[in-house]
Amino acid sequence: MEKDVRIVMVGAGNLGTCLAKALYKERFNIVQVYSRTPESARCLAMQVGASYTHSLSELTSEADLYITALKDDALLQLIPHLTRGREEALWVHTAGSVPMSVWDGYAGRYGVFYPMQTFSKAREPDFDQIPVFLEADSEESLALLHEMAGTLSRKVYHANSEQRQSLHLAAVFTCNFANHTYALAERLLAKYRLPFDVMLPLIDETAQKVHTILPGDAQTGPAIRGDEGVMAKHRRMLADEPRMLEIYEMMSKNIQNMKK
Amino acid sequence: MEKDVRIVMVGAGNLGTCLAKALYKERFNIVQVYSRTPESARCLAMQVGASYTHSLSELTSEADLYITALKDDALLQLIPHLTRGREEALWVHTAGSVPMSVWDGYAGRYGVFYPMQTFSKAREPDFDQIPVFLEADSEESLALLHEMAGTLSRKVYHANSEQRQSLHLAAVFTCNFANHTYALAERLLAKYRLPFDVMLPLIDETAQKVHTILPGDAQTGPAIRGDEGVMAKHRRMLADEPRMLEIYEMMSKNIQNMKK
Repeated sequence: MEKDVRIVMVGAGNLGTCLAKALYKERFNIVQVYSRTPESARCLAMQVGASYTHSLSELTSEADLYITALKDDALLQLIPHLTRGREEALWVHTAGSVPMSVWDGYAGRYGVFYPMQTFSKAREPDFDQIPVFLEADSEESLALLHEMAGTLSRKVYHANSEQRQSLHLAAVFTCNFANHTYALAERLLAKYRLPFDVMLPLIDETAQKVHTILPGDAQTGPAIRGDEGVMAKHRRMLADEPRMLEIYEMMSKNIQNMKK
Repeated sequence: MEKDVRIVMVGAGNLGTCLAKALYKERFNIVQVYSRTPESARCLAMQVGASYTHSLSELTSEADLYITALKDDALLQLIPHLTRGREEALWVHTAGSVPMSVWDGYAGRYGVFYPMQTFSKAREPDFDQIPVFLEADSEESLALLHEMAGTLSRKVYHANSEQRQSLHLAAVFTCNFANHTYALAERLLAKYRLPFDVMLPLIDETAQKVHTILPGDAQTGPAIRGDEGVMAKHRRMLADEPRMLEIYEMMSKNIQNMKK
């Protein structure tokens, strides 16, 4: 594809940073980075050879593609201000949970570019393996997005807004909530002065296992075994951690309900 | 170590099966497999070149090392029957949550051999990477267990009963509960006719990430961002899944509480 398409990254949070860097690596032409936070805009711009601004009035209108990577609320608020005077460009957002129709009436060509992954600025993920879900207003816009996505990832799909929302919700469970179970373990181990590292082989195997066995069949542990003796002990150990205990009870109960 | 030490595997569930097969692979001498379920005993015995029985009266007394891999309740019930007439052997259990002291008064030499991993019969884990936590009644027993563990794994630790119990509880969170979040996603995706496979890169990255960033710092998603718009949408999508909604609320709330 023509990599001289002029791209503006609107947002310099975790997703915006990782996506802009991945595009830059593939020699795409990022002309400007916008972020409300000047430091974030500057920091990302430095890394991708772009200019930067924290002021909407300085947002260039000389770009072909604007990619927004903002919190959902901010996106909805900003759309009218962003697009005004820049209606000729292609506008895409990167949010799993926002329908494509938010662009309707504000941009002539638009779409969604949703890379389903957990992004942190401190970590460069292997974009090659990240599923990217696309949606667009027209075949032409879709083709352009598909070509761009295809240079970054080997897993490019088309998904409508409803599918994307369910993917995003499923991702909250498999990623955000799974990570929270790790965080709870971290807290527990710290209490007993044990390093979190010892958990890594187990975490890895738990993730690897569902490559070959569906999670419903891969479930192990005291709840699914109905091992009441162990569970009683765990409850006692969590007696001074009411929130963890609450999660323990709910997850265990739900594992048992799902088995039935 | 002398691999002709005669081993009996008491229990042929997921852990017993994986451990016996790993020992057999390292050319240890498994002489007998016991399981209450005749078919399980036979099936494992076939794979490790051992005799088998489902009757305690036929449990050999001619072994040097008995390894139990039973549910906690069953272990506590069986100990007196297992050890009677076999007090000279070394007895070890494999349970994270059972103190070593359960052997006290029943066996002369005893200990714990706790491989912290999720085991399924259908999947052979890489034992080399599995942390094994040991405890024993004496330096001599510990040395023997350490030598055996060292041939299977590169990660052998000593841990007392209290440490082991906290490891086990932490493992329930990082493994059993993390897998349950995968199972909930599986269920959700099925509803929208999306294949579970699309989640795998995200699951892998979520696990990989905590190798370099502690989970407390690796947290992403709408809850930690305080993205109320997204969360409201998710709640609506889960309106007909009251149990998933309950988990969604509790995990989100707890992620936010932990941030503070």
